[in-house]
Amino acid sequence: ATPTKRSYNITLLPGDGIGPEIVSISKDVLQFAASLEGIELKYQEMPVGGSAFDLTGVPLPEETLAAAKQSDAVLLGAIGGYKWDKLEKKLKPETGLLQLRAGLDVFANLRPATVLPQLIDCTTLKREVAEGVDLMVVRELTAGIYFGEPRGFGVNEKGEEIGFNTEVYSVSQIDRIARVAFETARKRRGKLCSVDKANVLEASMLWRKRVTDMAVDYPDVELSHMYIDNAAMQLIRDPKQFDTILTNNIFGDILSDEASMISGSIGMLPSASIGQSDKANPLATILSAAMLLRYGLGESKAADRIEAAVMETLNRGFRTGDIYSAGNKLVGCKEMGEQVMKSVDSSI
Amino acid sequence: ATPTKRSYNITLLPGDGIGPEIVSISKDVLQFAASLEGIELKYQEMPVGGSAFDLTGVPLPEETLAAAKQSDAVLLGAIGGYKWDKLEKKLKPETGLLQLRAGLDVFANLRPATVLPQLIDCTTLKREVAEGVDLMVVRELTAGIYFGEPRGFGVNEKGEEIGFNTEVYSVSQIDRIARVAFETARKRRGKLCSVDKANVLEASMLWRKRVTDMAVDYPDVELSHMYIDNAAMQLIRDPKQFDTILTNNIFGDILSDEASMISGSIGMLPSASIGQSDKANPLATILSAAMLLRYGLGESKAADRIEAAVMETLNRGFRTGDIYSAGNKLVGCKEMGEQVMKSVDSSI
Ligand SMILES: CC(C)[C@H](C(=O)O)[C@@H](O)C(=O)O
Ligand SMILES: CC(C)[C@H](C(=O)O)[C@@H](O)C(=O)O
Repeated sequence: ATPTKRSYNITLLPGDGIGPEIVSISKDVLQFAASLEGIELKYQEMPVGGSAFDLTGVPLPEETLAAAKQSDAVLLGAIGGYKWDKLEKKLKPETGLLQLRAGLDVFANLRPATVLPQLIDCTTLKREVAEGVDLMVVRELTAGIYFGEPRGFGVNEKGEEIGFNTEVYSVSQIDRIARVAFETARKRRGKLCSVDKANVLEASMLWRKRVTDMAVDYPDVELSHMYIDNAAMQLIRDPKQFDTILTNNIFGDILSDEASMISGSIGMLPSASIGQSDKANPLATILSAAMLLRYGLGESKAADRIEAAVMETLNRGFRTGDIYSAGNKLVGCKEMGEQVMKSVDSSI
Repeated sequence: ATPTKRSYNITLLPGDGIGPEIVSISKDVLQFAASLEGIELKYQEMPVGGSAFDLTGVPLPEETLAAAKQSDAVLLGAIGGYKWDKLEKKLKPETGLLQLRAGLDVFANLRPATVLPQLIDCTTLKREVAEGVDLMVVRELTAGIYFGEPRGFGVNEKGEEIGFNTEVYSVSQIDRIARVAFETARKRRGKLCSVDKANVLEASMLWRKRVTDMAVDYPDVELSHMYIDNAAMQLIRDPKQFDTILTNNIFGDILSDEASMISGSIGMLPSASIGQSDKANPLATILSAAMLLRYGLGESKAADRIEAAVMETLNRGFRTGDIYSAGNKLVGCKEMGEQVMKSVDSSI
């Protein structure tokens, strides 16, 4: 049905563990689907990771990188395993994966998380929270703390041994991944949330500035920013608020794995690498006061009282908005405090 | 009932946003509970964060740190807000908080996450997943990437602007937080999971080595290690597997916020600062093959076929162990692949 025969070279990198099995099956599926579309695929299978170390003594043989570079696309299975955990850094399976990412300059990693209606019962999130989730994590993959120099082991001014790494981003490294994210968001629902830790880290401050500046090129994309700790929380609280998430290498590693559980299993998640307005609840701080007593002052009985009072208040059905559920009494921050006060008196 | 009158000085640091309201209520509760135990508390309230900046031009006035140092314990509300987001680094509310942590040398931050039976309906996790969760995150609080030097902005060898931070841990910094974690685990259910990224970061490799070495002093504590990405996932998949979690500053920031959602609301979580054996599922890689087609080769029709085939296979009820639920057909990795193969043929 198609005018010209299209032909591509594919490098298969089964890797370790379940990698060979899943790549082999995937190859069959790939092959079949391609052939039905009149596409010709040529395969070359190469070792990478722990299995490459076992065969050749290094986790990324030169031949593997060369083959990957010369091919049109690479299909990778899985990398790493307990067997190779004690190897020195440069021989670790994971180092082979990082060298491959850097060698191929695949700076953008797209990790979608969707909840399939058929799998709604697999996720540990409640049905109504998970239903309809459809988000994409755009993770920077070839810079940041994974690759930053200097790194290694050394001795500090006190003569103590240290281990250190550098989180570093340049404007061009930020810009190119941000562009992928804006383009991705534009093709999806037009919402982009950039995740960083700009309240603490300079690398994140530069990240936020560049992403903000780029937004003028994408007036059709709605840009927001979120701190990584909040994002890790929001992803469980209300994953449907997200469309496209842009983030750095290490935060993307964490968030995409977390997001995978929303789908029910990391075994469902593909991945492609291409070039407060708080409803105030005083209970946390009240319970912190109990911890202050227990851990700061060693006064555990007084601490017990506070904790018992909070329990009793909850038993009596008082709830602030953030923890409200049907059948309970909705109260404001202040009244909640007053109710706990009553309970401190009566409990124990 | 107690022989001697105990008296303590408490510094109250309401901070920003909802801080003043929750600290004021908490103080009342604290006061009441203490008085019932015959404890005398003396209070001094000091500014910190954005409100301190508004009052004094700096987020941690010297007087505040001095008062905190001289007191027996400090009760802190909340820090930060949009209003102060554009301030330069050294004036940010968060910087005041970090200076306070460093100034007081509060290197250990304990963040418990428990699911109260009364609040079981608040968490977005399914009841059976959340019920009975009782874990404690022991977060290192005064080192790592939050404080590591060098940090700042600069220019790289290509003349481009960069932003950078240093993740660094010394053996004594690791040892002292590890000891708190082992002691905490010993007082709890005797299980300690240390979370790091030792497959990539040297700072984590040293961390894992020191924690492992310390385990000989705690034969009664069962130590395990987990990578941060996996931990972020396991915390949603099966939070009950955790007792005590030990981790560094940035990972602890992320994990503790994530864990807070298991409890239903971050408004429930107090905090105290004191000195794969995969059931193979081939679908992910099969779907990766589809993404390879779509994003790597621009062959969206072939990609569509694969994705449709996966959907059809799921519609036909086939499930690998990781995504199995009652009423479906449990199959192994290989058969799942075969079923997808059948579907590629028939679908579209
Ligand atoms: C195996 C490891 C080096 C890798 C990473 O951290 O990037 C993995 O966790 C991932 O997410 O692809
Ligand atoms: C406000 C911020 C600096 C702080 C942190 O990152 O430590 C907060 O997120 C926390 O978890 O206590």
